[in-house]
Amino acid sequence: MIHPARRVLVADLRKHVGETVSVSGWVNTLRLQRKMQFVLVRDHTGMTQVTHRRGGEGDLLERQLEEISLESAVRITGRVLDNPVVNLGGLELVPTGMEVLNRAQAPLPIDEHTGSEHRLDWRFLDVRKRPAAQLLFAVQTTVEQAMREFAYREGCTEMHTPKLMGTASESGAEVFKLGYFDRNAYLAQSPQFYKQMAIAAGIDRVFEVGPVFRAEPSFTSRHATEFTGVDVELAWIDSVEDVMDFEERMLVHTLTTVKNLHGDAIREHFGVEVTVPELPFPRITMAGAQQILRARGWDPQGVKEDLDPEGERGLAAHVMEETGHEFVFVTEYPASIRPFYHMRPADRPGLTSSFDLLWKGLEITTGAQREHRYDLLLEQAAEKGVGTESLRDYLNCFRYGCPPHGGLGMGLGRVLMVMLGLDSIREATFLFRGPNRLTP
Amino acid sequence: MIHPARRVLVADLRKHVGETVSVSGWVNTLRLQRKMQFVLVRDHTGMTQVTHRRGGEGDLLERQLEEISLESAVRITGRVLDNPVVNLGGLELVPTGMEVLNRAQAPLPIDEHTGSEHRLDWRFLDVRKRPAAQLLFAVQTTVEQAMREFAYREGCTEMHTPKLMGTASESGAEVFKLGYFDRNAYLAQSPQFYKQMAIAAGIDRVFEVGPVFRAEPSFTSRHATEFTGVDVELAWIDSVEDVMDFEERMLVHTLTTVKNLHGDAIREHFGVEVTVPELPFPRITMAGAQQILRARGWDPQGVKEDLDPEGERGLAAHVMEETGHEFVFVTEYPASIRPFYHMRPADRPGLTSSFDLLWKGLEITTGAQREHRYDLLLEQAAEKGVGTESLRDYLNCFRYGCPPHGGLGMGLGRVLMVMLGLDSIREATFLFRGPNRLTP
Repeated sequence: MIHPARRVLVADLRKHVGETVSVSGWVNTLRLQRKMQFVLVRDHTGMTQVTHRRGGEGDLLERQLEEISLESAVRITGRVLDNPVVNLGGLELVPTGMEVLNRAQAPLPIDEHTGSEHRLDWRFLDVRKRPAAQLLFAVQTTVEQAMREFAYREGCTEMHTPKLMGTASESGAEVFKLGYFDRNAYLAQSPQFYKQMAIAAGIDRVFEVGPVFRAEPSFTSRHATEFTGVDVELAWIDSVEDVMDFEERMLVHTLTTVKNLHGDAIREHFGVEVTVPELPFPRITMAGAQQILRARGWDPQGVKEDLDPEGERGLAAHVMEETGHEFVFVTEYPASIRPFYHMRPADRPGLTSSFDLLWKGLEITTGAQREHRYDLLLEQAAEKGVGTESLRDYLNCFRYGCPPHGGLGMGLGRVLMVMLGLDSIREATFLFRGPNRLTP
Repeated sequence: MIHPARRVLVADLRKHVGETVSVSGWVNTLRLQRKMQFVLVRDHTGMTQVTHRRGGEGDLLERQLEEISLESAVRITGRVLDNPVVNLGGLELVPTGMEVLNRAQAPLPIDEHTGSEHRLDWRFLDVRKRPAAQLLFAVQTTVEQAMREFAYREGCTEMHTPKLMGTASESGAEVFKLGYFDRNAYLAQSPQFYKQMAIAAGIDRVFEVGPVFRAEPSFTSRHATEFTGVDVELAWIDSVEDVMDFEERMLVHTLTTVKNLHGDAIREHFGVEVTVPELPFPRITMAGAQQILRARGWDPQGVKEDLDPEGERGLAAHVMEETGHEFVFVTEYPASIRPFYHMRPADRPGLTSSFDLLWKGLEITTGAQREHRYDLLLEQAAEKGVGTESLRDYLNCFRYGCPPHGGLGMGLGRVLMVMLGLDSIREATFLFRGPNRLTP
C-alpha cells in the first residue's frame, strides 16, 4: 500500500502542478482502452482526469482500475501534470496508487432516464451525481445565513421553540397527534404561538429556522407535510408596515448575497438569472388585487375571497407588466380568511393588518401584526369559534403587558423553488415528506 | 394624545441628552410620592428613570402614572436630562406623555419567591423580568452563530433533515410514534441517519441545528424530551481524530467569541468566568479513565462498563488536577455500549472509534467514526440484534460508494448549562419539555 499524500480538492489541483497529492472522490467515468486507462474522478469541488498507462502483468493499479465500479469512493495518489489537451482544467493526475475506500455495487439503481419519484427513492445518489443538486444546498446555506446575518444586525435573537405542544392550539384540523407517555401531544404547525410567547418574554426581535409540520393531504408541487420555516417576530412595531419593511430589506440583502456568490453558477446550472429587487416592493390591497384580476377575467362568478394559484400568477403578471417587479405584497386580507390572532384595523374590522408576499406568482410568506390586547383577542377567538381553553397558556401571554408586535413566516423550500425556477418543492428539499412519502 | 417621538433604546439615551424621545418598555418599579412620581422603565437594553412632578388637577399624566400597573407595556415620551444624582446612568426622562400599549393585570402571578416549577408555568414573565435569562438567549445566539461561522469556514453545508421518519430506525425504545394519515410515523431521535445520508449524497461536510426528540422517561436535571441538537458530519476522514480535532477547534472559536462579547456580563449575572480552553483537549481512553476512577474509589464492585454521572465528575476532577483543563475526550468506548454503526478498530473489535466529550464533568457530545462498509455494517447490526428491514433506506446508502466519515452530536442546552453554571437544563431552554411538562 502506497501511503497516501495530503488530500487536495479537485478545484485546488492547479496549485499543485508537479507535486504528488491524493484526490478523494467518486469514480464518475471509466474509459479503459487497450494501452491507456482513463478515470474521471469527482469530488464536491469538481472533476479531474486520472491517466494510467497500462503496465501489464504485475501492475496492481491496472488491475484495480480494470475492476473498479462507477461511483466507488476512492483515494488516488499521483503526480499532477499540466496537460493542455486534457479538457478538465488542462490537468491530469498520473497515479501511483489507488485505495478503494468503498466499492459501489453495480449497476447503479438510477440513471439519467429515471423518473422523479424513483429518483426521490434514491435521493442520495440523485443529489450526489447532479452538480445542480449540490449547488442547491450551497445556495440554501447562503440564503439562510444571509437572512440570519441580516436578522442579527437588526437586533434579532435566535430562538428554538418547542415542536411538541400539549394542545392542538392553532387549529385542530391539520395537526399531527402523537402518544406522549400517558397522554397526547401535537406537532407545531408553525412557531407562531411560541415566537409570540418569546415577544411576551421580552425578546425584542425573534428569529427562528426550524421544521414545521402540516397534516395536510395536499399533493401539489408546493406543499409538504414537513418543511423548513424561517420565522421572524418583531416587538414594539407601529404597524404591519414595519414587518413588510423588515422582510423586503432582508430579501434584498439575501438576493444580493446569493447573486454575488452563486449568480454565475445558478445561471449555468438552472438557466435562471438572480435579480436583486428594488425597494420598496409593490404593495396592493386584496380588494385592489381582486379588482385588477377580475378585469383580467379571473373568477367570473365573483365568489372567491382568497387568491387561488391562478389569481396569484395573474397578479404577478400584472405587477411585472406595470412595475417590472418580481415581488408583490398583498395586504389587508379579509378577517374571514385570516386566523383570529391577526390584528384588525380599528376603523375597518372586516379586514386584517396582514399580508402575503408573492414572488413570481408563488406565495412565499404570510405575515401580520398580531392582536396583543387580551380582551380583543378573546373576542376575535370567540367570533371564530376557537375554544379558548386549549389556548390558555397562549392567551395568558397577553394579560401582563405584551407589547404590540408582528411577524412573518417564510417557507425556505418555496424561496429556493422560485429562486432556482424548480418545478416542485420536492427538488428544493433534501428529503421530501408528503402524505405518501416518509422515505427514505 | 401627544405624538410619540422616535423610539430610542434605553442603552442609547446618553446620546440624546436634551432631546425629546420616546422610550418603549415595561413598568419595572413605581415610586409614587407626594410631590413626585418616579417610574423605572425597562426595555431589553436597560432601565431608566422617569421623573414626573405632579401637576395636580387636570394633569392627565399624573393620573395615568397613578393608575398604571407593574409590567404594563408603555411608550413614554419626554426630554432626556443629565442628572448625576440619578443612579441609572445619571440620566432621567422628564415625561410629556405616556401611551399605555398594554396594561398588565395585577397582581403578577410570580415574584422573586416563586419556586422553579411555577416559574416554568409562567416562563414568559420569568424570562422577561430576569436580566440573566435575557442574557442567556443572547449567549445562545452567539454560541450557535459562532459554531456556524466556524463550520462554514471549514466547508460545511447547513442541512435540514426530516424529523418525520417512516420507521423507528435507530432504536425502537425511545421514539415517539404518531399517526400519519393511514399509517404511523416516528420522530427522529437525532439527525444521525439522515446526516449520514447527506454524506452519501456527496455533501462534503454537514452542519445542522435542529430539534431532537427522546421518548425517555428521565427526570434528571440534564434530560429533556425535546432539545436543540448541533450536529456535524465530516466525509473523507482518516480517523475519528479528525472529528475530535474539528470539535475542539469549534469550541475554542465559540468560547473565544462568547468571552469577547459576553464575558463581563456572564461574570456579573452568573458569577462564572468563561475560559477559552487550550488546544488540544486532553484525551483519555475509556479503559484509562476507569483505571484512574477505580484508583479513586469509583465503582468498588468493578462492574460498570460506562461512566455514570459520578464517574464523569470524578474524571473531570482528575483531569483538572493533572492538566488544568475543563474538557476531556473519553475515547475507545466498548462496542457493547455503543450503537451498531460506530466503527470498530480493525485490530480491537471489542472497542469503537468513538468518543464522548465531557465539559466540567458533564457529557456534552457523543461522536464517532461511522462504519461505512456495507458488509461490516450488516454484521454489526446483526450482532446487536437490530432488524435490518426497517433500516433498508439507511443501509442502501452504503452500497454505492459512501465515503469514510464521522461526526458528532452536541446538546445546545447542555453547552449553555455548563457555560453559565446552571443547575438544570430547564433554565437553559426557552420552553422546557419533559415527561411531565408539555406546557406552556
